[in-house]
Amino acid sequence: MNQLSPFFLAALLLLVCACSPKAVKMPADSLALRSPDTRLELKFAVVNGVPTYTLDRDGKAILLPSRLGFELIDRENLTEGFSLVGSAFDSFDETWEPVWGEEAQIRNHYNELLVNLKKESGEAMDIRFRLYDDGLGFRYEFPMENKLTYFKIREELTEFAMAGDHTAWWISGDYDTQEYSYTKSRLSEIRGLNTDTRPYNASQHYISPGAVQTALQLKTADGLYLNLHEAAVLDYPATHLELQEGTLTFRTSLTPDAQGVKGRLQAPCKTPWRTVMVCESATDVLASRLILNLNDPCAIEDVSWIHPTKYMGVWWEMISGKSHWSYTSDFPSVQLGVTDYAHAKPHGHHGANNDNVRRYLDFAAANGFDALLIEGWNIGWEDWYGCQKDFVFDFLTPYPDFDLPGLNAYAHSKGMRLIMHHETSSSTVNYERWMEQAYSLMNQYGYDAVKSGYVGDIIPYGEYHYSQPIINHYHYAVVEAARHHIMVNAHEAVRPTGLCRTWPNMIGNESAMGNEFRANVPPGHTATLPFTRLQGGPMDFTPGIFEQDMAITAPGQTGKMRHTICNQLGLYVTFYSPLQMAADLPENYARFMDAFQFIKDVAVDWDKSLYLAAEPGEYIVTARHPKYATLNSGRLSGHSSVYDFVYKDGRPHDVWYVGGVTGEEAREFDVKLDFLQPGVQYEAMIYADAPDADYETNPQAYTITKRTVDSSTVLNLRMARSGGFAISLRSL
Amino acid sequence: MNQLSPFFLAALLLLVCACSPKAVKMPADSLALRSPDTRLELKFAVVNGVPTYTLDRDGKAILLPSRLGFELIDRENLTEGFSLVGSAFDSFDETWEPVWGEEAQIRNHYNELLVNLKKESGEAMDIRFRLYDDGLGFRYEFPMENKLTYFKIREELTEFAMAGDHTAWWISGDYDTQEYSYTKSRLSEIRGLNTDTRPYNASQHYISPGAVQTALQLKTADGLYLNLHEAAVLDYPATHLELQEGTLTFRTSLTPDAQGVKGRLQAPCKTPWRTVMVCESATDVLASRLILNLNDPCAIEDVSWIHPTKYMGVWWEMISGKSHWSYTSDFPSVQLGVTDYAHAKPHGHHGANNDNVRRYLDFAAANGFDALLIEGWNIGWEDWYGCQKDFVFDFLTPYPDFDLPGLNAYAHSKGMRLIMHHETSSSTVNYERWMEQAYSLMNQYGYDAVKSGYVGDIIPYGEYHYSQPIINHYHYAVVEAARHHIMVNAHEAVRPTGLCRTWPNMIGNESAMGNEFRANVPPGHTATLPFTRLQGGPMDFTPGIFEQDMAITAPGQTGKMRHTICNQLGLYVTFYSPLQMAADLPENYARFMDAFQFIKDVAVDWDKSLYLAAEPGEYIVTARHPKYATLNSGRLSGHSSVYDFVYKDGRPHDVWYVGGVTGEEAREFDVKLDFLQPGVQYEAMIYADAPDADYETNPQAYTITKRTVDSSTVLNLRMARSGGFAISLRSL
Repeated sequence: MNQLSPFFLAALLLLVCACSPKAVKMPADSLALRSPDTRLELKFAVVNGVPTYTLDRDGKAILLPSRLGFELIDRENLTEGFSLVGSAFDSFDETWEPVWGEEAQIRNHYNELLVNLKKESGEAMDIRFRLYDDGLGFRYEFPMENKLTYFKIREELTEFAMAGDHTAWWISGDYDTQEYSYTKSRLSEIRGLNTDTRPYNASQHYISPGAVQTALQLKTADGLYLNLHEAAVLDYPATHLELQEGTLTFRTSLTPDAQGVKGRLQAPCKTPWRTVMVCESATDVLASRLILNLNDPCAIEDVSWIHPTKYMGVWWEMISGKSHWSYTSDFPSVQLGVTDYAHAKPHGHHGANNDNVRRYLDFAAANGFDALLIEGWNIGWEDWYGCQKDFVFDFLTPYPDFDLPGLNAYAHSKGMRLIMHHETSSSTVNYERWMEQAYSLMNQYGYDAVKSGYVGDIIPYGEYHYSQPIINHYHYAVVEAARHHIMVNAHEAVRPTGLCRTWPNMIGNESAMGNEFRANVPPGHTATLPFTRLQGGPMDFTPGIFEQDMAITAPGQTGKMRHTICNQLGLYVTFYSPLQMAADLPENYARFMDAFQFIKDVAVDWDKSLYLAAEPGEYIVTARHPKYATLNSGRLSGHSSVYDFVYKDGRPHDVWYVGGVTGEEAREFDVKLDFLQPGVQYEAMIYADAPDADYETNPQAYTITKRTVDSSTVLNLRMARSGGFAISLRSL
Repeated sequence: MNQLSPFFLAALLLLVCACSPKAVKMPADSLALRSPDTRLELKFAVVNGVPTYTLDRDGKAILLPSRLGFELIDRENLTEGFSLVGSAFDSFDETWEPVWGEEAQIRNHYNELLVNLKKESGEAMDIRFRLYDDGLGFRYEFPMENKLTYFKIREELTEFAMAGDHTAWWISGDYDTQEYSYTKSRLSEIRGLNTDTRPYNASQHYISPGAVQTALQLKTADGLYLNLHEAAVLDYPATHLELQEGTLTFRTSLTPDAQGVKGRLQAPCKTPWRTVMVCESATDVLASRLILNLNDPCAIEDVSWIHPTKYMGVWWEMISGKSHWSYTSDFPSVQLGVTDYAHAKPHGHHGANNDNVRRYLDFAAANGFDALLIEGWNIGWEDWYGCQKDFVFDFLTPYPDFDLPGLNAYAHSKGMRLIMHHETSSSTVNYERWMEQAYSLMNQYGYDAVKSGYVGDIIPYGEYHYSQPIINHYHYAVVEAARHHIMVNAHEAVRPTGLCRTWPNMIGNESAMGNEFRANVPPGHTATLPFTRLQGGPMDFTPGIFEQDMAITAPGQTGKMRHTICNQLGLYVTFYSPLQMAADLPENYARFMDAFQFIKDVAVDWDKSLYLAAEPGEYIVTARHPKYATLNSGRLSGHSSVYDFVYKDGRPHDVWYVGGVTGEEAREFDVKLDFLQPGVQYEAMIYADAPDADYETNPQAYTITKRTVDSSTVLNLRMARSGGFAISLRSL
């Protein structure tokens, strides 16, 4: 974390305070909308032709008067000259059931205000506000009857005028990646700290000192937790938040396409939702379903083929330097269709070879996993990186030592499936050309999930990972996959914005620094992500790394992992994902089978989640109750280890899991088990950092304690620095 | 044509002469290569580290010393510092048979010099020269063993230092289109005339005053005909020729991609061939097979499904304003999948309706055509143009009044096929997403040819019609089509460069102003294209327009056609294409059935072609002898009208066709029939402009004369201004 001198800080604050008070006041005849619990109030007015809104909570400003509008290319801007020509209030209350999730039922309860705006020149623009108890969502809508039909956005000018110099957990704006570690600072400090001297990434594009990414977690001096994000980003670029110089006002800053256009729209159409979450506690942020609720209901009729999955992978051994994705050292460069792999000399370190894959399958099957991911199975890995090479992979042709039909048959014979890997090297052009054949190959051999990757700069040339055409590509890949009954886990794609409600075959995303960066991010990283990246949907964080050595060749990723084993166990509960990996190598787990037991026992899909304690970047403690219907759904045949844990002795037990993680500081925490069924006794297996555990000096020290507990029990647990704990609870 | 004052011309010439003499002299130890007939001599040398070449004919300079090389992006240029590290001479003589063409056998006879160049810094570059009797081809090759593996071109710096201020027939350089009319001027006049004040095109990008397009036809003061072009443009941008200021030297000017990169290469690789044709007469230019010979042999194993085709189309009635591509006026804009066509009110002017298509089929079948093209059959035409709309067509869904299965069945019952139409609106992204389904739909219903279109600016955004990624798209479409046994006729794509030798399912291209522009181009246009656009491959010029009224809505395309009916007939012989249209409406042909007879009788595939007389922009007279094996190959069943003409009374006759077209001036021409079999009598049907015919005042006046002739006959024929003639000859 950067240090600023008190003098500099004071100067900054003075500057901010001098500029902050807005000249705009909301007029008395503003339209006002209250949340169902009446505590949040949105006001909207057209002030001198400018659409403007505010947000209060209990009469106290959350957002000061903030402008709404757009600058357009080659036509009149949508910034001023508007009249309010209509408005409508509505309210909505519905409980829906996600295909998978943190809880079995989600309440979607809001009051709505739709305003119809028109310019004298004929442009029509509506704004739809939805006010929930836990925050605001609003979007622009462009009706069919409009002077606007096709139009191009120069910039969206939506403002969020913050009412104070809040604390923020932020990463720098970037058109291509969210793979950065978080900085905690005051808003007024952001512009000074946010320089273009960031760690290397295979594709990155710095924006400006003011630009930070969403979801942006904030905390006010009063202890309110605010969170700015967006929901349902489709056919529109992802936005950043640009802190305007000398103010505390954020403005949207969209990702341009190859021609610098920040969105090409055709009426009738709508933008993504802009969201402002307002919570009294950090745990309420984790419990919020605002982003999911603002997305459309499920678009897939038959969802029977979508299932939560716990998996292992031939992956970490390449990340940690033990083996390679590639097969040979014969070729200075590869031209698919020309390069002769059949006669190439293997370099002997190819991870995805038949024997090794069978070894993983034997271990994973014996321990009740659902699936195995294998990276480096297909030709091209000798030469895939950093050259913006178009025809980089064909997604069809295995290396000579990877028997695709045979290995699938072997996996299926053990009740497991293989997970396909499609690294696109960010050539969406090439991937789309092969997609139909690649998905069909998966169907042919019984793969039902794919991990896709978007490492490196995008082709089509000049596009960014977050620009509209590429966002459309990610969506296209998910929709096409759904047609093939394939689940998608996209890495390096745009951060999700709740689209998994509509397309629940989007079972995972990366879009942040995952576990493989743990050697180089501050310990608080895993206590930050659930407030930021995970707000939009689950992350394939790949927890479960017990060994500490990292030797990946990518810059900035060598060194020792900085977490304890119990931190890794805690993540299986604190990070929600329907796709959860046990990322370490079989031989490493074999040395810690007692701790590995928790990874075997923990479920991945839930009917209830309780957020017991949390503070961004500091700690998170979560308790979850599994969804029984999906305990075994990832298996082709036989029992999953979770099923066996829950159905011990052949009968269902009531089961809970509790996990905790902490950041830079060691802490103690009292876990009250009052969520257990009263009067029922449970066997608790408690996985805790040993008293002398420490992420730097003693990361592999843990204790495992078996206790009988009930709903009156309070467990006092100590977490080491960058440590954690995990508890499985099963009724006796 | 523009007029220049004599004073201005003299000043220009002075300027040019002052700058023209080159300081570089070829050293005595140059490598020299001679054409098989020894008349052309290429010299190559590395002069002070710079690769340099010259071309002489009979000891007289064609090209003065000209540099070779590249500027690269972010690495050392390939311009100087080279050493000659090796060289090899070779020669080649082979006769090959095209799947279709102007003659049944083509001789490929050349001497070759390969030079190996290397820089001290390790970059290796080879140049392969092939010298034919009729010209030079050379290309750069980058071997595998190289400091260069991946590299990006800032500019290719290949020079063509012309030895005189030749006459040129040129169109302005443009990254997106060749749809311009030709200017005839001295080289020294180009920069003054080549301004950015050109007719509107749906997609165009002016380059510079010096830039002109290839193929560039030139004529020297000595009466030599030179032609600069390229061959086999694949995975590389198309080039223009940039006349360097104050010189007579052209330099290559490649088309950039969306990031301004003019080519992304991966060794081992090669560039397209740069070609310099050198001919003693204009007819030799038309007879040259240089471009085809420099392309690779046929890559398609089974070519049985590829066949020459004579077709009609539901097309000109939209072009001429009688009907529309679209179906309804209900929608201000269309969103496919949302817009409800089923309940839309038809505007009543939709050309591609069942009754109208059946009417065309009845007429075309009765007159022995092979196929019928129908444009406007698929939903989306209300809103397809000029908005860079991505999801513009799905290529699958017919309008409510177009019964796709029924009309195909109806066509097949008459021995004909329908030709599919795929207007991409230049969204290659969208087209590639639908291509597999679209081609499969074609297979399902028995379409075996597609006319594709690329109107408007390209998506991916920032790409051009001639940039490398889009050239790869055109090729991808052709290769995928071949997999589906589909022939491709791409309009608005890059001008072809002989690739039809390798991919003979590329049966047509537009890539120039076709017949629908005849109201607005000078009459000499059709006497120019065979020297320029047609050098790279056949053009779907869509001849056969007998009526003169044009009312297309596109700017610059209204007015009266400027040609006589006999000019249109002559084109069927002077323009070679294996895909030949009778473009006018059935009702117009019905009024001129005697003239229409020639269109019915004329063949479209040849075993011999004779170029009797030609001058660029002035006139062309050609005689052709059909390939008997393919006379009937376009039909599903029954006889084509050509077959019936040749097999009159059920036995084969010897048959020839002669065609002539002229430009702005009326001319007389003596056609010597000495190519006929000696001692055999032929029935000649002579379609000639009437004595009072004139393209402006009396375009539809013609005479038809039947005569018995033999090889001693000389026919004296008069061609009106923008007129022509046509003769069919059948042995008695």
